[in-house]
Amino acid sequence: MFKNTRKRFIKNLATSAVVLSSCMSFLVSADVLTQQQKNEMNSLSTTIAKSDLSYQLIESLTTEVGHRLMGSEGDKKSIEWAVKKMQALGFDKVWTEDVHGTFWQRGEAKAKIISPFPQDLVAIALGGSVGTGEQGLTANIAHFENLAALKAAPDDSLAGKIVFISHRMEKHITGRGYGGAVGARVGGAVIAAQKGASALVIRSVGTDNNRTAHTGIMRYKEGVVKIPAASLSNPDADMLVNQLKRQANVSLYLKLTPHTDPKVIAKSANVIGEITGSESPNEIVAIGAHLDSWDVGTGAMDDGMGVGMMMAAAHHIAQLPQRPKRTIRVILFAAEEVGLLGAKQYMVDHKDEMKNHIIGAEWDFGTGQIYKMTSGVGKNALPAITELAKYLQPLGVELSPENNAVAQSDMSMLSEAGMPSMNFAPDGTLYFDYHHTENDTLDKIDQPTLKQATTIYALFAYFAANSGVNFR
Amino acid sequence: MFKNTRKRFIKNLATSAVVLSSCMSFLVSADVLTQQQKNEMNSLSTTIAKSDLSYQLIESLTTEVGHRLMGSEGDKKSIEWAVKKMQALGFDKVWTEDVHGTFWQRGEAKAKIISPFPQDLVAIALGGSVGTGEQGLTANIAHFENLAALKAAPDDSLAGKIVFISHRMEKHITGRGYGGAVGARVGGAVIAAQKGASALVIRSVGTDNNRTAHTGIMRYKEGVVKIPAASLSNPDADMLVNQLKRQANVSLYLKLTPHTDPKVIAKSANVIGEITGSESPNEIVAIGAHLDSWDVGTGAMDDGMGVGMMMAAAHHIAQLPQRPKRTIRVILFAAEEVGLLGAKQYMVDHKDEMKNHIIGAEWDFGTGQIYKMTSGVGKNALPAITELAKYLQPLGVELSPENNAVAQSDMSMLSEAGMPSMNFAPDGTLYFDYHHTENDTLDKIDQPTLKQATTIYALFAYFAANSGVNFR
Repeated sequence: MFKNTRKRFIKNLATSAVVLSSCMSFLVSADVLTQQQKNEMNSLSTTIAKSDLSYQLIESLTTEVGHRLMGSEGDKKSIEWAVKKMQALGFDKVWTEDVHGTFWQRGEAKAKIISPFPQDLVAIALGGSVGTGEQGLTANIAHFENLAALKAAPDDSLAGKIVFISHRMEKHITGRGYGGAVGARVGGAVIAAQKGASALVIRSVGTDNNRTAHTGIMRYKEGVVKIPAASLSNPDADMLVNQLKRQANVSLYLKLTPHTDPKVIAKSANVIGEITGSESPNEIVAIGAHLDSWDVGTGAMDDGMGVGMMMAAAHHIAQLPQRPKRTIRVILFAAEEVGLLGAKQYMVDHKDEMKNHIIGAEWDFGTGQIYKMTSGVGKNALPAITELAKYLQPLGVELSPENNAVAQSDMSMLSEAGMPSMNFAPDGTLYFDYHHTENDTLDKIDQPTLKQATTIYALFAYFAANSGVNFR
Repeated sequence: MFKNTRKRFIKNLATSAVVLSSCMSFLVSADVLTQQQKNEMNSLSTTIAKSDLSYQLIESLTTEVGHRLMGSEGDKKSIEWAVKKMQALGFDKVWTEDVHGTFWQRGEAKAKIISPFPQDLVAIALGGSVGTGEQGLTANIAHFENLAALKAAPDDSLAGKIVFISHRMEKHITGRGYGGAVGARVGGAVIAAQKGASALVIRSVGTDNNRTAHTGIMRYKEGVVKIPAASLSNPDADMLVNQLKRQANVSLYLKLTPHTDPKVIAKSANVIGEITGSESPNEIVAIGAHLDSWDVGTGAMDDGMGVGMMMAAAHHIAQLPQRPKRTIRVILFAAEEVGLLGAKQYMVDHKDEMKNHIIGAEWDFGTGQIYKMTSGVGKNALPAITELAKYLQPLGVELSPENNAVAQSDMSMLSEAGMPSMNFAPDGTLYFDYHHTENDTLDKIDQPTLKQATTIYALFAYFAANSGVNFR
């Protein structure tokens, strides 16, 4: 999950209130679905409850491909994997659309406290960071409790120092702590460099207490010196804080050897598969996830989960006796982690078609149980959303009274371009224990939750594709 | 925690039944403690509830020393640290007793699946393992579900193979899964080598799903080829199993570069501190822990926890207006992890004094809440144990009806030499998530639980040292 969209997404979640399901009785209208379609919705639920297809897809992707950072060997393999799987699963059309960018290679990360008390620390380079050179660098720490404190430091006050930001991410069902913590990761290096620092080290943006540091994208700014940037695992950040409590002069050695060849343009691709609509094939119900991952772990939660859900949901709909009226388009975006490159390219490639995107939803929020749905649709479509909510309520999903949702991650760009959107919110309590770490592996996928989520997206897609509702 | 004693300890725990606290009313006898002593027991509890001394000691040891494998720089530092701290805490006598052994250095560990689907795996060398050489070795996997299945393989059937044992340790409050899993770690390499294998790889003896592999001691046998031995983290063992499900021919690359210089005799030491008895100074109430740790993490749970508890418990007793009647001896054993070397040396050094060890208890079982106490004393001492249990019951400790306990870890050797013993059993559910891994760090110490445990050991030591009871 990439930074900007997460922030926006979480903001929406955080301001949502408890659903007023009693309101539903006041919204009397003709049902959107026919009795036969309702029967098919039931049939879909039953089928998915018995199927482990979405799990098998995630198992296959993580076992046979593994991680898949933009431009890497795994990235290429995952594109082939997705095309073949979609074809085998009975999609009517499957194609790829090229996405270009750079291939950042992680290299090595080493950090150790030199004095007062030598200790090896677990560190990881932030995504996109420059290196320290093979020899590494050693400097005293300048400690700040958060990004605001760093911003408040006098200009040029940090010459030659390694800035350490020790802010700890809050653990919360909505994942709201991410918004408050991720600024240090994305923007900390620029601020630190502007004040003369030679490197940035942050406490991981993560809620676990494993010695597994969290990576994620960081940014430089034109005209500001690029300094190396890394994160420490939570226990290692604790160690540094505890030594700083004893004395202000703590000396740290840092070595990062990432590499990007600016002359090489890496190629990736959005992978797109469709179940073609029987009545209005040009009208698109878009469901998506991102196919890329960070180069740590196997990208099982982020976002193998979404990939498996969307492919399985569309497959189960394709297995019904007839095609839905509208087209269901599964978009597996490239290069989300490194800056929504796939989504940006999709916006270019499908500019003229954007008006045909009837409604869309992405999944990029790990493996927690979905408990809430929020719409972002035209007012006239609200009764239809209320009807959809009736089908999802037995799965534990409450309808938020708000109607300001954007879709998650990549698809937030489509939302902003006017696509009506749904946002399904999970229990995000555990997600940031594993997010962007080596621990993002298959065992973190909770199979009952995966079935719930797959069912929800299948019912949503079926409902939207078979209704004549204008969601704008 | 070392293997053999753990196994014995857990066996005792596993066969214990629910305590029959109602029995206590039948065991009427004159109280062991005077009213003044009872008041001092209360005072001790109150003091410890307000003190964070045991936590501060663990924080100091882990922050200022860190890990401390037999023979390492950390080992030396920890001995100095313990002597100074005991002196500062008001112990009447503090001294060290030399312990000799070898210094095994871990080096590097790399493992990757070469085919069918290349994946990097997280591995760690088992303690004492030989290396693969710098070039590493590549071989096909021979997969066994447990040690028994390996034992059942035909002789010479594994020529040139890397044996992989995928047995998963059961998670249980008593830690009983350890006994069933640890045999593969300790003895697997010998069995595999006898059948021609070139290396051993096991699923970590651990109950977590972090990509953090668990180390621990392994053994070779005179006359059997020494082969390299490593463990994989649980998610990495899953990966290997999932590839083996697809095809039997899975090729693994393994590189381990540990090193032991057989010519160098490493020196460590047991660190001993006493609160000298006022009436019977030669009678010893022994409380202990081990000072060494594995060379991963900072040895906070294993066994910084025990070190902090014992030092704090003795200190709080030393702060009372008068010395206890008997001597309280805190023994911080050297080199427990690599084979109870400190305990073995203690048995040699204190052979003639063994009869003066009135009773003893060690702590080497992590940071869970203590819920049970089991005695291993003479029958005549049972009423006194019942009285002790009355003081500990408000802390959540039930008295086991069994009377067959040995002390934990190092002190099990003293128990076997006839020392009456107590064994306090904690909730061990989480211990093996972190045991022998990089994740054994300060944040895993639960402070309320630490206070409970410190209080229990202080009350036990005070009670035993102030009673005239013969526990034999």
